[in-house]
Amino acid sequence: MIIEPLLKARPEISGELSRKDTIVLTTRIRFARNLAEHPFPGWAKADQRKEVLSACLPSILGLSQMKSGLSAEVDDLSELEKQILIERHLISRELMEMKGGAGFVISKDQSNVVMINEEDHLRMQVLLPGFHFRKVMNAINVLDSKVEKCLEYAFSPKLGYLTACPTNLGTGMRASAMMHLPALVMSNQMEKVIRAVNQLGIAVRGLFGEGSDASGSIFQISNQTTLGESEAEIIKRLTSVLNTIIEQEFNARETLLETEPTKLFDKIGRAFALLQNSYLITSSETMNHLSLVRLGVDMGMISEEIRSSVDQLFIDCQPGHIQYLADNKIEPNERDIFRAAYLRSRFENLTKPEFIFKK
Amino acid sequence: MIIEPLLKARPEISGELSRKDTIVLTTRIRFARNLAEHPFPGWAKADQRKEVLSACLPSILGLSQMKSGLSAEVDDLSELEKQILIERHLISRELMEMKGGAGFVISKDQSNVVMINEEDHLRMQVLLPGFHFRKVMNAINVLDSKVEKCLEYAFSPKLGYLTACPTNLGTGMRASAMMHLPALVMSNQMEKVIRAVNQLGIAVRGLFGEGSDASGSIFQISNQTTLGESEAEIIKRLTSVLNTIIEQEFNARETLLETEPTKLFDKIGRAFALLQNSYLITSSETMNHLSLVRLGVDMGMISEEIRSSVDQLFIDCQPGHIQYLADNKIEPNERDIFRAAYLRSRFENLTKPEFIFKK
Repeated sequence: MIIEPLLKARPEISGELSRKDTIVLTTRIRFARNLAEHPFPGWAKADQRKEVLSACLPSILGLSQMKSGLSAEVDDLSELEKQILIERHLISRELMEMKGGAGFVISKDQSNVVMINEEDHLRMQVLLPGFHFRKVMNAINVLDSKVEKCLEYAFSPKLGYLTACPTNLGTGMRASAMMHLPALVMSNQMEKVIRAVNQLGIAVRGLFGEGSDASGSIFQISNQTTLGESEAEIIKRLTSVLNTIIEQEFNARETLLETEPTKLFDKIGRAFALLQNSYLITSSETMNHLSLVRLGVDMGMISEEIRSSVDQLFIDCQPGHIQYLADNKIEPNERDIFRAAYLRSRFENLTKPEFIFKK
Repeated sequence: MIIEPLLKARPEISGELSRKDTIVLTTRIRFARNLAEHPFPGWAKADQRKEVLSACLPSILGLSQMKSGLSAEVDDLSELEKQILIERHLISRELMEMKGGAGFVISKDQSNVVMINEEDHLRMQVLLPGFHFRKVMNAINVLDSKVEKCLEYAFSPKLGYLTACPTNLGTGMRASAMMHLPALVMSNQMEKVIRAVNQLGIAVRGLFGEGSDASGSIFQISNQTTLGESEAEIIKRLTSVLNTIIEQEFNARETLLETEPTKLFDKIGRAFALLQNSYLITSSETMNHLSLVRLGVDMGMISEEIRSSVDQLFIDCQPGHIQYLADNKIEPNERDIFRAAYLRSRFENLTKPEFIFKK
C-alpha cells in the first residue's frame, strides 16, 4: 500500500491538553490557490492538468516541511486507500473523484497537506489537534509563501486570489474547527446554536463536511465568506464564535449534571457497556458511543488514561480503517462483526464508568 | 396492604423443568359460570351484585383449595394493589374496573383464583408454571364440581353454560398458554405463525391479553370458540397447535445459531450488558432484555442458575411491582430510575454470557 507509512504515525498533541482542547478536537486552515496562465482543473483537459501536476509536485516535495512526506497521484491509489485518506481528513472526496492529473503531498507528521488539481490547482491545509488557530495560521502562511516563491499564483490586486468557485475568491481561505458537542446535542440545543452561528456568517457541518450527519456529536464549524475581510479578521471572528460555543457546551454539561444526572449517567453507562459487549456494530453507532465515552472522560467519570485510545478508535473504526485492520480479508458486510470484536478486545479490561450523584 | 401475603410467595415449579416448559411459561384454564335466577353482573344493580357476592364468597372461601387463601372486595383495594394483581395475571383488568360487589378469592399458592362479578358471576382460573394442560384441567374440574355443589349454575341442556357474552357460551372455557417465542420474533416468523394459528380457531395475544403488545416476545395463545366441542376436544386441539409452535421456536433457534450466530450473540450480549449498566429503563425495554437473557439461559450461553431470578424479574419490574418495591415512596416518573438501580444490583455480580461460534 502506497499510504502505509501514514497509518503507523499519528499527529501527537504536544504537552498538556487545555480545557478548550477537550472540546475543539482539531483546528484547520486551508488556502485555495491557482496558477496563472493555466485553466482551472474543472475546465482543463487531462493533459493540461498533468502539466500543472508536473509543475507543482517537485516544487512542493522540495519544501522543508514536506521532507520524508508522502506524495502520490490519485489514479495510483486503490479505492481502500482513497477511503482511508478521506476518513483521516487528509484528502477531500472531490480530489479522489478526479480522473487524470490529481495528486497530493502530505507531510510526515500529516499536519501539512497540499492537494493538486482538486477544484483549484492547489488546496493547501494545515491541521493540528486542539484549538490552535494562531499556530495553524503561522504554519500555513509559511507554506503559502514558500510555494509562492516557486509558482506564479493567479492573483488580482482588486479581487485577491482567483479561484474556480466565487465562494472562495479573495482570501481563498477556509478556517474550521472540529468540535465535540455532546451535551449541546443531548439537551437539544444544537439547532438553536446552528441558527445563531449561521447569522454571523459561520457554517456548521457534520464530521465529513457538507451534507454529512453529525454522528458522534462532532461538528465542523467554519467561515462562510472569504471576500471583504482580511485573513486575520476572519480568524478573529471565528475564534470568538468558537469560544462562545465552548462555553455553551461546558454550561450544558454542568446543567445536565445538576438537573438530569441520571439521563447523563444512563447514556454514558450504556455507551460504554455496548462498546464492551456488542457482536455487530455499525460505524455510525460506534461514533455515537465513543462520543459519550469521551464525554465521560472529560467529566471525570471514566479514567483519563483511555482518552487517547478513544480518540484513536474514532479513526480506526471508520469503514476503510476497519477493512485495513482486517488485512483487507473481510467482505464489506463482515465489517460490523470485525469492528465489534475489535472494540470488545479494546474495552475488555477497562474499568467501568463511575457515577457519583451530587447532593 | 391487603395483598401483602401474595407478594412474598410465588408458585414454584415442582421438579425438573422439561424442554417444553422453557417455552411454555404458564398454562391456564378459566371457566365462566353464572348463578341461576340472578341477572348478569353487567345488567345487575349494585345491590343485586352484592347479593351474589354474599352468596358466593363464603362457599368459595370454605373450599379446601382456598384454605388460608386471600379474599377481598375490589372496592377495598388501592390502585397499586389492583395494578399488582393484574401484573401477576391473578385478576383481570375488567374486574378491577367494576364498582360495587366485585370480589375475588385467591388460593395460598396462587394457582386457583375465583373472580366474582366480573363479566360473569364467576370466573374461575387455574394457572400453573410450565406446559401442563392435564394437571390444570384436573384441578379446575375439581374446583368447578365443588363450587357447583354449593351454588346453582345457569345451565341449558341445549346450549351448555349460559354466559353474559355469547362468545363464552357452551363450555364457558378459555384455555391458554403463555409462550416465550424470541427466536420466532427475531427471525420475523411470528406473523406467519399467527396467521396459520388463527385459521385453526386459535387466538394469539400479547402478554396482557387482547390489544396488548408482545413485549418480551411473550404471547398468550388460547382457544377462540367455546361452543360445539367438548372441553377435552378443545384442549386436545390447542395442545397440538402449541406443540407445533414449540417445535417451530426450537427450529428457529437452531437456524439462528447456524446461519446468524453473530446476530443472536449481539442481541443477547447487548441485552445482558444493558440490564447491568442502565440508569433509566422502562418496563417494556426491561421485558425485551430479560426475554433475550432468558433465551441465552435456554441456549446454554448464560448460567442456568439465573433462570429463576430472571423469571422473577419479569414480574418484579412491572410498574406496580416497582412502586411496591420502592415502598411506594417514589413518583411514577422515578420508576425508571429505581428499576434500573434494582436491575444493576441484581446483575452486578453475574457472569457475562459466553458465546461459542460453531464450525
